[in-house]
Amino acid sequence: MESTSSIARTVGVQDEVGIVAKLSECIAQHGANIHYVDVFVPEKKQVFYSRSEFVFDPVRWPHDVMLNDFMNIGKLFNAKRSVVRVPDLDPKYKIALLASNQDHCLVDVLHDWQDGRLPVDISCVISNHDRAPNTHVINFLKRHGIPYYYLPADEGNKREREILDLVKGTDFLVLARYMQVLSAGFLESYGKDIINIHHGLLPSFKGSNPAKQAYSAGVKLIGATTHFVTPELDAGPIIEQMVERVSHKDSLQSFVQKSQSLEKQCLRRAIQSYCELRVLPYEGKKTVVF
Amino acid sequence: MESTSSIARTVGVQDEVGIVAKLSECIAQHGANIHYVDVFVPEKKQVFYSRSEFVFDPVRWPHDVMLNDFMNIGKLFNAKRSVVRVPDLDPKYKIALLASNQDHCLVDVLHDWQDGRLPVDISCVISNHDRAPNTHVINFLKRHGIPYYYLPADEGNKREREILDLVKGTDFLVLARYMQVLSAGFLESYGKDIINIHHGLLPSFKGSNPAKQAYSAGVKLIGATTHFVTPELDAGPIIEQMVERVSHKDSLQSFVQKSQSLEKQCLRRAIQSYCELRVLPYEGKKTVVF
Amino acid sequence: MESTSSIARTVGVQDEVGIVAKLSECIAQHGANIHYVDVFVPEKKQVFYSRSEFVFDPVRWPHDVMLNDFMNIGKLFNAKRSVVRVPDLDPKYKIALLASNQDHCLVDVLHDWQDGRLPVDISCVISNHDRAPNTHVINFLKRHGIPYYYLPADEGNKREREILDLVKGTDFLVLARYMQVLSAGFLESYGKDIINIHHGLLPSFKGSNPAKQAYSAGVKLIGATTHFVTPELDAGPIIEQMVERVSHKDSLQSFVQKSQSLEKQCLRRAIQSYCELRVLPYEGKKTVVF
Amino acid sequence: MESTSSIARTVGVQDEVGIVAKLSECIAQHGANIHYVDVFVPEKKQVFYSRSEFVFDPVRWPHDVMLNDFMNIGKLFNAKRSVVRVPDLDPKYKIALLASNQDHCLVDVLHDWQDGRLPVDISCVISNHDRAPNTHVINFLKRHGIPYYYLPADEGNKREREILDLVKGTDFLVLARYMQVLSAGFLESYGKDIINIHHGLLPSFKGSNPAKQAYSAGVKLIGATTHFVTPELDAGPIIEQMVERVSHKDSLQSFVQKSQSLEKQCLRRAIQSYCELRVLPYEGKKTVVF
Repeated sequence: MESTSSIARTVGVQDEVGIVAKLSECIAQHGANIHYVDVFVPEKKQVFYSRSEFVFDPVRWPHDVMLNDFMNIGKLFNAKRSVVRVPDLDPKYKIALLASNQDHCLVDVLHDWQDGRLPVDISCVISNHDRAPNTHVINFLKRHGIPYYYLPADEGNKREREILDLVKGTDFLVLARYMQVLSAGFLESYGKDIINIHHGLLPSFKGSNPAKQAYSAGVKLIGATTHFVTPELDAGPIIEQMVERVSHKDSLQSFVQKSQSLEKQCLRRAIQSYCELRVLPYEGKKTVVF
Repeated sequence: MESTSSIARTVGVQDEVGIVAKLSECIAQHGANIHYVDVFVPEKKQVFYSRSEFVFDPVRWPHDVMLNDFMNIGKLFNAKRSVVRVPDLDPKYKIALLASNQDHCLVDVLHDWQDGRLPVDISCVISNHDRAPNTHVINFLKRHGIPYYYLPADEGNKREREILDLVKGTDFLVLARYMQVLSAGFLESYGKDIINIHHGLLPSFKGSNPAKQAYSAGVKLIGATTHFVTPELDAGPIIEQMVERVSHKDSLQSFVQKSQSLEKQCLRRAIQSYCELRVLPYEGKKTVVF
Repeated sequence: MESTSSIARTVGVQDEVGIVAKLSECIAQHGANIHYVDVFVPEKKQVFYSRSEFVFDPVRWPHDVMLNDFMNIGKLFNAKRSVVRVPDLDPKYKIALLASNQDHCLVDVLHDWQDGRLPVDISCVISNHDRAPNTHVINFLKRHGIPYYYLPADEGNKREREILDLVKGTDFLVLARYMQVLSAGFLESYGKDIINIHHGLLPSFKGSNPAKQAYSAGVKLIGATTHFVTPELDAGPIIEQMVERVSHKDSLQSFVQKSQSLEKQCLRRAIQSYCELRVLPYEGKKTVVF
Repeated sequence: MESTSSIARTVGVQDEVGIVAKLSECIAQHGANIHYVDVFVPEKKQVFYSRSEFVFDPVRWPHDVMLNDFMNIGKLFNAKRSVVRVPDLDPKYKIALLASNQDHCLVDVLHDWQDGRLPVDISCVISNHDRAPNTHVINFLKRHGIPYYYLPADEGNKREREILDLVKGTDFLVLARYMQVLSAGFLESYGKDIINIHHGLLPSFKGSNPAKQAYSAGVKLIGATTHFVTPELDAGPIIEQMVERVSHKDSLQSFVQKSQSLEKQCLRRAIQSYCELRVLPYEGKKTVVF
């Protein structure tokens, strides 16, 4: 058997018992072998979340047939969302990166992408803060033919219409320290997921300068948080959080430096998990991370 | 529907595709609702590991029928091991605790048991080091009617025959810092799982006095490890590991103190996971921990 | 040289340069050997914090002379607080434990005390929640002759006058999940340090039921915090914080269980550090933890 | 007072009591203000380690006078090593980077250096594995005028003489995954510190392919270690260690990926601490990290 990996994720209505059975049966009937299955049903909720990874023979189970099979099962169970990805055959997820004057997260995503560690295509970088022509970011983007757009957003004009135009066709957005709130209107128009990195341990330290907030609060652990963007500032479902120890010896500057290291790891892991269909929001404010 | 929780775990031969489908179908047919499913198939191996948690109606699906159903599915797939537990209906796992002169792990397990945090029955405590009549452990055991046996093992006579007699009828053994190697013969005769806590980060620092070994090695992180006991010293499949930071300011004594705190947590979590059917060895040297 | 360990801590006004020199000179003149020195001066502040551990010969430098020497140096520098402890010669710190209906922190402190891991004397346990005569805590206290007082506090009468009477002569108080706010008046009357364990990662999740708050917020890391008590609820200077990973698989109950494990460690470490003169508040909202 | 920061570190013979007093007195006499002092004396050893950070007025205490003052105190106490750095006035530490075919650590150091986060000058990059002309590393080095040398070492000829020539004038070396053992002769000839990153949690998993070793051992935590290079393979004094959790779901590939993230952080922190005079070996196999 020729083997190709596939990931199928289904979210559906739970009182229709037997969804796991149907999904597994379908995979088995096509001679595919399951590697991982994860099913989660929140207590007292009428919904379920499932993710399967299996190896199949694309000759015996052609890609379009597979997609159709899963869609039909989804319909059977009123599945709200159903995604199937075959990493070797499907196009990579297309993302746009939004940034501001801080480069560390942006650069880290770009390098991980360059080294083949992030399975995405980067359609463009949009920044509300300009960069000189010969900086590392600008040079990097030029070398790789990734368009760079400088859109100086301010409270009066957030340039959201232009952003919307630029990110058309992307699968999700990554705010790599964008430092600008996107309006509810923008979120609705874009309609797809947006991942943000916040340089604080949410729900503490929302808003601006969380490192300074944490420094003033005298905490002994600082953190970073990746979350889905919702209209409410820094309150979307949390995907990943990481912490590091600080002490009275740490200055505000070393808080910032330690935070940046956390932000990079935290964002990287969130994007990677998202692309592997591991992450999905539930109950409005939470996430399942398989 | 009256709801009772059940956990089913099956380990079987993988080339029989469809085991997940069959299990899920069986659960669905009896109107039970799955809460969690975990399936894992090691790459290129002919074996699978699965664990399901589901809520069922014991009127509609009587306990003995359920056990029978799963056994039949297991047979269908040449399942090597198949366990079903209904925590509310089944008797608790019966364990024996083996200890030596160090009390911290033993006491921690006893207190967790007393506080209802460990779903086990403790059939006895066996120690190769004696305790004075009025010590905390002895008083505790007396109050709770748990037999205490002092069996001074030495290289010449490890008292294994007596131990075997005492632990008859237990479901698994917990070595709460027993500090004595059990022979291959003992392991074979007992035939069930034995969980050990090692006060070092295996595979480093096997054998005696790992804290001193770690202290001499100048490590910056110390750890504790719970693992299944095999004939080879401190080399059984690892269940759980935990670490804590140390520095040049730490003395050997503070290494020991920090280690003890890790050991207690690490052992507690391993026992709890084991009782919830989350832990099982695979490939001889590894574990799946669902 | 007969060797006895001593710890000296001085907090003083910084523009008098040379305090470290004077302290070290004084130690050297008496032939004592320094093991650790820690000095910290917050940027742009007129204050310094120092801690020294040294080994001295009590014949050559009698205890009362030593105390006098350090007091005189302190005066020289307008030292605000100056403490010297010789663990082998000084009486242990006397503490009172305040608890409510949750036993895990209380029991953990009691056992650590019993095992000689906490260098304190426990003068009494005060609880606003009653315990049946034969429970573990009551039995333990009886066996060790530690008085137990049940003072059912409510909003109308917090029984603070009675508490004040009971804790007279203690060196500091430990709130082992006391779950009752102490008034500004009480804090002023008591006049010494009070250490509280909060079962959340402050400044997030202040107030009641932080585990539930964290569960609802969908965090991926939960934590515990020890802090000094100030009139403002859960806002005193943070001493220690610890975290553990949680996921969508964790129930509210397992949040609570994981939190309890953190609380015990976090409280234990804070008390121990405090007794070793490592902890002191600074700038109102922060702590130095040497 | 004009304020410039200085760091002074002294290692000396301990039975000469009063070294801390002398150092602090000298600093105080010149009207300088201490920010941090750390002194450590290993138990029962005739040696001490001290580090001070203080702010001084370079008019009142000229740089060369300061150096002379500390040298004289050092002599007084037979100090074995005495270093004083004034980050704003002294030249940065000059380092050379040695790499092999893996780029992640090398690139991370280069970017941190570019972003001003590592206070070093990079004199050259030496690799035993060649790189194509247009790769990221080669482009980066060209743009910044950093020489790149390809020296294909093998067991027969490790090219150590050429390396020695190239690293003349550097203050220390960084092995950013060099994957080649340096001979005792090289270490002696070079005579200065060499920092290595090992992609395993030493002393476990020495030698080649530690990720695979860890994967086979079924560990639940993987780690990275920075250490000083000594003639014995992967056995030099440990500077920093970091870990991350792994599970049965992790493949060898994800072990490697998680490890790379740890290696970068671990190496970055070691270099930074080293430049701030925080790190020094003691007792042959350990380090003090202030």
